[in-house]
Amino acid sequence: MNYKSLSRFISLILWIEAGLMLPALLLSLVFHESGATNAYWQSILIIVLLGGAFFLLSRGERAGDFYEKEGLACAGLSWIIMGLTGALPFFLSGEIPAYIDAFFESVSGFTTTGASILGAVEHMPKSILYWRSFTHWIGGMGVLVFLLALVPRGNKGSGFTLHLLRAESPGPSVGKLVPQIRKTARILYLIYIGLTLLDFAALAIGGLFFHDGAHPTTVFDAFCIAVGTAGTGGFAVINAGLGGYSIFTQLVTTLFMFLFGINFSCYFLILRGDFKSVWKDEELRVFLGISLIAVVVFTVSIVPQYKSSGLALKDAAFTVGSLASTTGYATTDFNLWPNVTRAVVVFLTIMGACAGSTCGGAKVIRLILIVKNLFRNLKQLVRPSRVANVRVNGRVVNEGVLSNLNTYLAAYVFLLFVSYLLVSLDGQDGTTSFTSVLTCFNNVGPGLGQVVGPAGNFGSFSVGAKLVLILDMLIGRLEIFPILALLSRSTWSHS
Amino acid sequence: MNYKSLSRFISLILWIEAGLMLPALLLSLVFHESGATNAYWQSILIIVLLGGAFFLLSRGERAGDFYEKEGLACAGLSWIIMGLTGALPFFLSGEIPAYIDAFFESVSGFTTTGASILGAVEHMPKSILYWRSFTHWIGGMGVLVFLLALVPRGNKGSGFTLHLLRAESPGPSVGKLVPQIRKTARILYLIYIGLTLLDFAALAIGGLFFHDGAHPTTVFDAFCIAVGTAGTGGFAVINAGLGGYSIFTQLVTTLFMFLFGINFSCYFLILRGDFKSVWKDEELRVFLGISLIAVVVFTVSIVPQYKSSGLALKDAAFTVGSLASTTGYATTDFNLWPNVTRAVVVFLTIMGACAGSTCGGAKVIRLILIVKNLFRNLKQLVRPSRVANVRVNGRVVNEGVLSNLNTYLAAYVFLLFVSYLLVSLDGQDGTTSFTSVLTCFNNVGPGLGQVVGPAGNFGSFSVGAKLVLILDMLIGRLEIFPILALLSRSTWSHS
Repeated sequence: MNYKSLSRFISLILWIEAGLMLPALLLSLVFHESGATNAYWQSILIIVLLGGAFFLLSRGERAGDFYEKEGLACAGLSWIIMGLTGALPFFLSGEIPAYIDAFFESVSGFTTTGASILGAVEHMPKSILYWRSFTHWIGGMGVLVFLLALVPRGNKGSGFTLHLLRAESPGPSVGKLVPQIRKTARILYLIYIGLTLLDFAALAIGGLFFHDGAHPTTVFDAFCIAVGTAGTGGFAVINAGLGGYSIFTQLVTTLFMFLFGINFSCYFLILRGDFKSVWKDEELRVFLGISLIAVVVFTVSIVPQYKSSGLALKDAAFTVGSLASTTGYATTDFNLWPNVTRAVVVFLTIMGACAGSTCGGAKVIRLILIVKNLFRNLKQLVRPSRVANVRVNGRVVNEGVLSNLNTYLAAYVFLLFVSYLLVSLDGQDGTTSFTSVLTCFNNVGPGLGQVVGPAGNFGSFSVGAKLVLILDMLIGRLEIFPILALLSRSTWSHS
Repeated sequence: MNYKSLSRFISLILWIEAGLMLPALLLSLVFHESGATNAYWQSILIIVLLGGAFFLLSRGERAGDFYEKEGLACAGLSWIIMGLTGALPFFLSGEIPAYIDAFFESVSGFTTTGASILGAVEHMPKSILYWRSFTHWIGGMGVLVFLLALVPRGNKGSGFTLHLLRAESPGPSVGKLVPQIRKTARILYLIYIGLTLLDFAALAIGGLFFHDGAHPTTVFDAFCIAVGTAGTGGFAVINAGLGGYSIFTQLVTTLFMFLFGINFSCYFLILRGDFKSVWKDEELRVFLGISLIAVVVFTVSIVPQYKSSGLALKDAAFTVGSLASTTGYATTDFNLWPNVTRAVVVFLTIMGACAGSTCGGAKVIRLILIVKNLFRNLKQLVRPSRVANVRVNGRVVNEGVLSNLNTYLAAYVFLLFVSYLLVSLDGQDGTTSFTSVLTCFNNVGPGLGQVVGPAGNFGSFSVGAKLVLILDMLIGRLEIFPILALLSRSTWSHS
């Protein structure tokens, strides 16, 4: 393990985090929220000093290279430390009195899960709600990618940066948009910022004209909804959730949840005028196809509960977008829908949207590869003499990617089950235990059952169950291996 | 596809089945059950004629070889046809008026699932109950293995028989006890018969002395319980299930459920005096270790509901033995146990017991291999330069076995989920839909929830859902590939 580089990295991450906390501090001053202001001062001080401590550790001769294990450990450790320190404002302001709850909320924010331990949020200081929602935006694209994009480094070059990008970015294989990794990271962030601003502008301007919701979509609300949508997070700033706003706000959010679930390289291709590649992208087609089917199933199932089929369609589309993109916003409690919808809810929770987007979940491309690989292997079982390849978008998929995918699937099932066994020690009913693990692991937010459904919250779980769920959120966001690598002895050996 | 050999095989299987139905016919005569007698006459006639038709198809020049695909197709088709024809006595006697229900019951019997569409059974003719239970015993060790063991064939030899044995026998890799496959099959059947007789004798003799149950353990009951335990099936012949008998009967059944969950090659080694290999067998150790933990968890969880801790221990041990061995007998309704036990119930349902036994489920050795392979791959991810092997019982596991295992896992998860989606169209609650699929797929029998729990039955499902569950039972018993191979075009091509 290259400890020096690791420490240097963590110090940079901490300082970036402190910098990203400054707007929250400013906001607390603007809104005269003195408790929050103190909490932000103290938090920023602690984070800067902690970053300094790691910086001191990193001084001296910079030894060794930066390989896979450094990339994995860097990603895993950074995210845990970010979760721990990002919780400080919630805890120090006294808004979340128990540190474990603040930690849960912070990790839920950064991992863009959006599962909350809070029952009500409206009474909280605006600057605290701002930070809570903004963690989604930070975590959506990833801080390491942010680091790659913005901090100029004369360092090791592409081997170094590729391992980091790989460790943090979602999807079975990480593509480069342009030959230089740093430039790729910058393009991704520019698309991310551009789409977020579009969403924010649409919501803020719409808020001026549409007043049919119980809550007006103020500029503050528009910002929080936009960053929560962009990161596919799901924390709401009003108790009623997205259902409390105007239908316009709900429709815009539906559209952007789908948009943020699409591989960002599609936008890059569109910007370069290559519409054909986007149109022919298998993952995009399967994602949109499954989403369409799910919308139809939901609409048909719930229409008897609604005044008009238009309103049913609106809630169905919103829920599909929210679950598939793993955002987790809710306009309605899908626990009250007919039983037949529940399997679809579970399926969408696991599926997620496209790789290379900000969504969590397994990603559609993984499902495509698993199914294609399965059918290839079955064919080969019947005819051992013929060798067949798996192809996506006309290109042969590397066998290494497929083999990693199998490891991923085995790890996924194994961790899911161990987590379920541990969380079930809390004595909640099976549906609650299982779907709370499932929704945290896939970074969605709400589960099935009253306790963890869209109308419930995770506050009633024991400390042990919360720790398991925190780990699940991190494991899910980083796609298993960076967190597991922290547990391996070989990661920490000096060679 | 070698159609001639396939037809010849199916004709033999059908004639064997007709032969195995003769004792039921005799029993119906002894008990003067004229309706059942007529049903058995008609059934046997139909089956013999059907076998004759297949025999006619197989005549002429016997062309081609017998490869994997022939073995897979033979196993898959034989089991479907056995299920279809084994249902005839239930249907023709009028005891199960709908043919789909009779088919469900028959497949549930042969696959040793034990899930029933019947709410009450005591009023049914004894000879019908006998056949229902005896299908467990036939299916437990497998009819193709039976064929291999008993029918002398001058045919192709070991390549031929190995493919058949592989296609029907449970476990990731099929070992030969002795060099000749036919001899291996005979040894397995002799152990099977011996253990069944021991179980039957213990129950029948105990029934003379212990009368503390609501129902006496008659010779008929002892026989049905013994064959149901041996095949790890689970059909009971009284409405109260195993809980209705004396505690002695329950304890003997507990012991034999565990014994029939152990790899039969262990008994072969014991008969040869090789206790050391059995003692050191990793799969056996993990199986017994997990069972012990589960018994402790269950006992601690349920003891407040019981008069004495001894009775709690008895029901806990019985339930663990029943679920892990995938028998599915019940002395109590575990749906009434605390929530914390539910995750363990699901885990045991999936796990199953040892490969090479009569149990269903994933088999303990598969879990061991999946976990070991997972940790090996994680290590290799951190250190790509080192090559490590997976070892079980000190021996290196072939990479082909591990790669097949990954295909198996992917297929398992995929089929489980598709089945769950289809069954959930019935509109049952999520727990019922999911665990009904799970318990059929793993050939256990009861699931969670009132509808499919130990006190419920599968009668209320729609025809569509029943068909899906029938397929799941067959896919589970034959470990996925023989049934899927029937769907592949290459299986049916002439080359």
